[in-house]
Amino acid sequence: MNEKINALISEMTLEEKANILSGKDFWHTEPVKRLGIPEIMVADGPAGLRKQEEVKGALTTVPCTCFPSESLLACSWDTDLMESFGKAMGEEAGFEGVNIVLGPGCNIKRSPVCGRNFEYLSEDPYLSGVMAGHIIKGVQAEGVGTSLKHYIANNQEHRRLSVNAVIDERALREIYLKSFEYAVKIGKPWTVMCSYNRVNSGYVCESRRLLTDILRNEWGFDGIVVSDWGAVNDRVECLKAGLDLEMPSSGMVNTQKIINAVNEAELDIETVDKSVGRLLELIFKAVENKAEKISADIKDINHKRARKIAGECIVLLKNEQNMLPLSKSEDIAFIGMFAKQSRFEGGGSSHVIPTRLESAYDEMCKLLNREIPFAPGYSLNSDIPDEELIKEAIKIASGAQKTVIFAGLPENYESEGYDRKHMDMPASHICLINEICKVNRNVIVVLSNGAPVAMPWIDNAGAVMEGYLWGQAGAGAVCELLLGISNPCGKLAESFPVALEHNPSYLNFPGEDDEVYYRESVFTGYRYYGRKKINPLFCFGHGLSYTSFEYSALRLEAKVFDAGEDILLNFKVKNSGDRQGKEIYQIYIRNAEGELNKQASELKQFGKLELAAGEEKEVTVKIEGSAFSHFCTREQAFIVEEGEFEILIGASSEDIRLTAGVKINSADKVKKVYHKNSTIGDIKENPAGKILFKELEEQYPEAFEMIFNGMEDDGSDFRDKMIHYTVLRSLVYFSKGLISEQKIEELINILNNN
Amino acid sequence: MNEKINALISEMTLEEKANILSGKDFWHTEPVKRLGIPEIMVADGPAGLRKQEEVKGALTTVPCTCFPSESLLACSWDTDLMESFGKAMGEEAGFEGVNIVLGPGCNIKRSPVCGRNFEYLSEDPYLSGVMAGHIIKGVQAEGVGTSLKHYIANNQEHRRLSVNAVIDERALREIYLKSFEYAVKIGKPWTVMCSYNRVNSGYVCESRRLLTDILRNEWGFDGIVVSDWGAVNDRVECLKAGLDLEMPSSGMVNTQKIINAVNEAELDIETVDKSVGRLLELIFKAVENKAEKISADIKDINHKRARKIAGECIVLLKNEQNMLPLSKSEDIAFIGMFAKQSRFEGGGSSHVIPTRLESAYDEMCKLLNREIPFAPGYSLNSDIPDEELIKEAIKIASGAQKTVIFAGLPENYESEGYDRKHMDMPASHICLINEICKVNRNVIVVLSNGAPVAMPWIDNAGAVMEGYLWGQAGAGAVCELLLGISNPCGKLAESFPVALEHNPSYLNFPGEDDEVYYRESVFTGYRYYGRKKINPLFCFGHGLSYTSFEYSALRLEAKVFDAGEDILLNFKVKNSGDRQGKEIYQIYIRNAEGELNKQASELKQFGKLELAAGEEKEVTVKIEGSAFSHFCTREQAFIVEEGEFEILIGASSEDIRLTAGVKINSADKVKKVYHKNSTIGDIKENPAGKILFKELEEQYPEAFEMIFNGMEDDGSDFRDKMIHYTVLRSLVYFSKGLISEQKIEELINILNNN
Repeated sequence: MNEKINALISEMTLEEKANILSGKDFWHTEPVKRLGIPEIMVADGPAGLRKQEEVKGALTTVPCTCFPSESLLACSWDTDLMESFGKAMGEEAGFEGVNIVLGPGCNIKRSPVCGRNFEYLSEDPYLSGVMAGHIIKGVQAEGVGTSLKHYIANNQEHRRLSVNAVIDERALREIYLKSFEYAVKIGKPWTVMCSYNRVNSGYVCESRRLLTDILRNEWGFDGIVVSDWGAVNDRVECLKAGLDLEMPSSGMVNTQKIINAVNEAELDIETVDKSVGRLLELIFKAVENKAEKISADIKDINHKRARKIAGECIVLLKNEQNMLPLSKSEDIAFIGMFAKQSRFEGGGSSHVIPTRLESAYDEMCKLLNREIPFAPGYSLNSDIPDEELIKEAIKIASGAQKTVIFAGLPENYESEGYDRKHMDMPASHICLINEICKVNRNVIVVLSNGAPVAMPWIDNAGAVMEGYLWGQAGAGAVCELLLGISNPCGKLAESFPVALEHNPSYLNFPGEDDEVYYRESVFTGYRYYGRKKINPLFCFGHGLSYTSFEYSALRLEAKVFDAGEDILLNFKVKNSGDRQGKEIYQIYIRNAEGELNKQASELKQFGKLELAAGEEKEVTVKIEGSAFSHFCTREQAFIVEEGEFEILIGASSEDIRLTAGVKINSADKVKKVYHKNSTIGDIKENPAGKILFKELEEQYPEAFEMIFNGMEDDGSDFRDKMIHYTVLRSLVYFSKGLISEQKIEELINILNNN
Repeated sequence: MNEKINALISEMTLEEKANILSGKDFWHTEPVKRLGIPEIMVADGPAGLRKQEEVKGALTTVPCTCFPSESLLACSWDTDLMESFGKAMGEEAGFEGVNIVLGPGCNIKRSPVCGRNFEYLSEDPYLSGVMAGHIIKGVQAEGVGTSLKHYIANNQEHRRLSVNAVIDERALREIYLKSFEYAVKIGKPWTVMCSYNRVNSGYVCESRRLLTDILRNEWGFDGIVVSDWGAVNDRVECLKAGLDLEMPSSGMVNTQKIINAVNEAELDIETVDKSVGRLLELIFKAVENKAEKISADIKDINHKRARKIAGECIVLLKNEQNMLPLSKSEDIAFIGMFAKQSRFEGGGSSHVIPTRLESAYDEMCKLLNREIPFAPGYSLNSDIPDEELIKEAIKIASGAQKTVIFAGLPENYESEGYDRKHMDMPASHICLINEICKVNRNVIVVLSNGAPVAMPWIDNAGAVMEGYLWGQAGAGAVCELLLGISNPCGKLAESFPVALEHNPSYLNFPGEDDEVYYRESVFTGYRYYGRKKINPLFCFGHGLSYTSFEYSALRLEAKVFDAGEDILLNFKVKNSGDRQGKEIYQIYIRNAEGELNKQASELKQFGKLELAAGEEKEVTVKIEGSAFSHFCTREQAFIVEEGEFEILIGASSEDIRLTAGVKINSADKVKKVYHKNSTIGDIKENPAGKILFKELEEQYPEAFEMIFNGMEDDGSDFRDKMIHYTVLRSLVYFSKGLISEQKIEELINILNNN
């Protein structure tokens, strides 16, 4: 391969090289026919393909399967399911002649109101990165590439092309980059898409540190970096930083700049060749991996797959007095226009033209084999409560044993391109729910929304099912769940705060002018709610089942480990109810002794178990040694702090069932540098320093009397406390030089050379 | 004056100059006998004098009046009272021959656990600065100077000599500096004390910007800057920055450095002379202003004053079913060792040896003219509940109609030198309260503590009185309040959060290593709780009375004002109860239209009214134009943003009684600089830009078709929304240069030169 590519590069003119480094058009790379270099095709695709083609001079979008949005997919916590999903997308892409699917997205959900949250997976970097990694594996197993996006910190739509995200190093490394790190390492995506925004001043596109040092050198990424569509700011700087392909083409504008820069020796030809080489490798890989034959029925098959996947993801948030499942013989009414017109996907580049579209109403009637009462309850065209529609709905609900209300966020509330300003559902939906709850105590709310909503009506509803944007076949899946044909087994991949104000980013989202400060630092999502003692409405990892699970018998192979060592642990999970179900267990680790800002519980492992009624399984889990590390800004590396850690095994981030403590021994020490403003406490903490300080006290009793200025040594620790934060230089000044500056310098030198 | 000082300076040798710039010892300046320059004396003093003198070779502290701590003083919200308090301290200082009282402190209470909070006034810069300013006025009216401290951002004791406070410019200006700005401008202190810590990297002591540019040049401070005791890091740099006097003396160590620096031309002699001149001015002012004759009874007089002051400050936090006031005829029991041994002051440099000390038990017996039952309930030497003591207390409480429990924080919980780690009272106190509440439903808790505590028992107690550290005569004051001899009229000068975790600084206090990030930015105290919808246990400005007050008839002279204009408003307050009382009204202003991070309600005015039963008064308040400003980082100035503001008149920060909206017109515009990454939205917001952009659209229809890439113009605002955050450079790249870079540059130039 390399030889062939090197040969090609050596034959290419500078113009051809510069030219191939941006697209032919929106959806294709530039071919070089003279040399037999083909073009390849890309298409949007986090939840299904948006393949555009020119038909009679006009761009049209080919109908493709619309799968559940990523925000729902993540609720499966099922890596096998993510691979199946990827495979389904990959097959369909192969069928459509698409070589690279632009997705998945794995940006962290910093705020619930980011307009593009439905295209992202989680507020937690581990869950987000692992799930994205398996989606990538699934797609690429079909010979189709992916483009992991949007690297990095594209956590808002507000001013996304100009905003500067100011993120401290720990948060960047432990949260925002971490999600991509997992995804890259697990999934090995063919391409990574560079985001529009700036991070800590410079454009990500132009950051050699982010695109080359971290992404390629640290993580071992060996694919190409493509710009988000229109993200390139300074083409030559981008190329130097490691951004290979500009999309879409800017015609000769930027191509000429590359040529000029090389001719004027501002840009090495080696840099250009490296990017061209990577691009050629990608193109030939895509062409050569092209699947030979894909079933012509792929879209029928994928519709069924989309339904199955949605069923594995939808989350049962609340179920009082076993309101659900519904019995087929009950009088059930459906209320809410979303029951007939499914709210199934978000807006923007991920918008798919579905091959068909299920409605919850139709699917329920099919499953029940009868018509059920229905009232629209609200208009799709207005947020304001419609008295007539509500009256009609009340009438329908009054006659039913149980009422299922379909509500949530209308289509224009959530899209690429802009953020929400609040977390509220339209007044028309809220009012409908409240009014129906007054006449029917058995109300089930089924929500369709790309991201969390406030639920001021929550106490009135008996059950709530979170459907997110469930794709073209999700409506059928939700009906099966409502009837208990399947058992809910999704859990939230993000926290639902009671109010937007409680969100950690609230006071700093979406920023001012072109600056957004990530002042919540590493405390995103549940890390924040937990540490701040702010109860969310529904916590990260929460999800109910029609059965129940018991956790027991946690065993660790030891109590003390060395840093970096993997830890094996066992525990049992039992289905203590009377029907089959799936349980997602979650393993959190907490640094019990670290500085305050390292003490959040963090998800480090999870798994999903299928258990028959009464069945018990023993789970063996390996926690990697790196799970105990944090990013040390001073060392510029992940290190493990020696100390006690807690391992917490939970059914959710707040429902911890089993705990164990471990001691981690570590040689990772941050080298302390001593100076004249080191505190006496710091000196005494150092074994050699403690001795030296004692010698000093003995050698200069008069000096210390001056330092303590008449503070009597009353045998208590008061003197110690008072001198604890005093600094070395003070010993000189308070003693009027009795202890000399030279003496202190000597002490410092000894400690620094120790 | 100036002539005399200039003459003296011209006669002083360099050695004498260098020498006088640090103290003779801990408590005196250096005299120059040869030239008739006397020494002056300083003494610690935020809550009373700590005058140290050598008696037979040993340092002893002279007994002086211990007034209430600043944390309690601030609850008076009474500027006249602060002047009386200052006058009392000033007289006593004069009597003791003290020329400068080291206080008041006006650092912002960033966290409830800062060890020195009892020496500070408030979480709000306006309340803090105004109260400090009036204390200063009071002291200085007696010919005694003050030292306003600790300038600046000494908001924690943890690593106070080495820590670097990283504070964004807006928070620094609007919160931390603002408190000092008010105090300096109102009080004109003779000296300002520079703090130990660093701010945004450098030591405050060495910051010319903080000590000279802002303090002297912007605010007009004309006194001397003295180092906190031992705060000097690099003496020469300090002098250059504007720190005049080093305390205490470091002997020849630093004096020699000044001499050398001048001799080696590293330091201008003019800089030295300036500081010497300021110091001489201070010394002569102190000597010449010395009060001639002060009553020898000053300490008796001040004891009575201290009692009166405490009574005007103590806050009634809770009073269910009119549990208070107690009737003299009721069977009252006192529980808790603090009733006999008053917890009346904090530890560290502010620790006063009181001239006498009241106990609540004795004072209550005197007022009732009988002995009352008492049980200690807990030991002062242990935090662990003592079963025997509790049993005894239960017995006593069981026999009483009402039980008053004295509890709070033991002495060693709060001191200069270290911070608390939590907000909890000792288990022995909590357990006592809970157990007593089980047997007696009429429990009144009287708290003694320097700063907020958690109150897990709050629902069990009928009434709670917050006494803070009430000074040597506060115990009598609290008894008069309990009996209704006086009527509580204090209100909290800080928020009491339900849990420490809710405090805005929690995740960033006290920092890591030597860095503490003020990531809550301007959202300190109630600014945070309000915006974050986190309910505090007791909010800023809260305080009850035995009577009630009604607010009405808010009138403004107009609805629209120009920036900078003062606003006059009137409203009425009526004592709607049946006894005399005092009400503190609070005026908050909220920028209703500003960016999210400017929308906190902020205290901008307050006042205290005395009203007889049934009496109504009309209040006229002037709100200064500057109350509507915020600090603009880009302009490096306070500016007023044009728009709608709310004026909120409340009995507390959460109990808003009257509101009005005003429109402020302002010419303060931040000049926008346009560039190739300006968003289309920004361009269209500019009237000229809007026209130019429209021309562009008309001139290059084909380019815009490429930019929208097949996005149909469906008559909705979808295209507008999509292009809103697009940047100018994208017009070139997406149109492949149809719109040229030159064209865009022309547009930018026109807008920037407009």
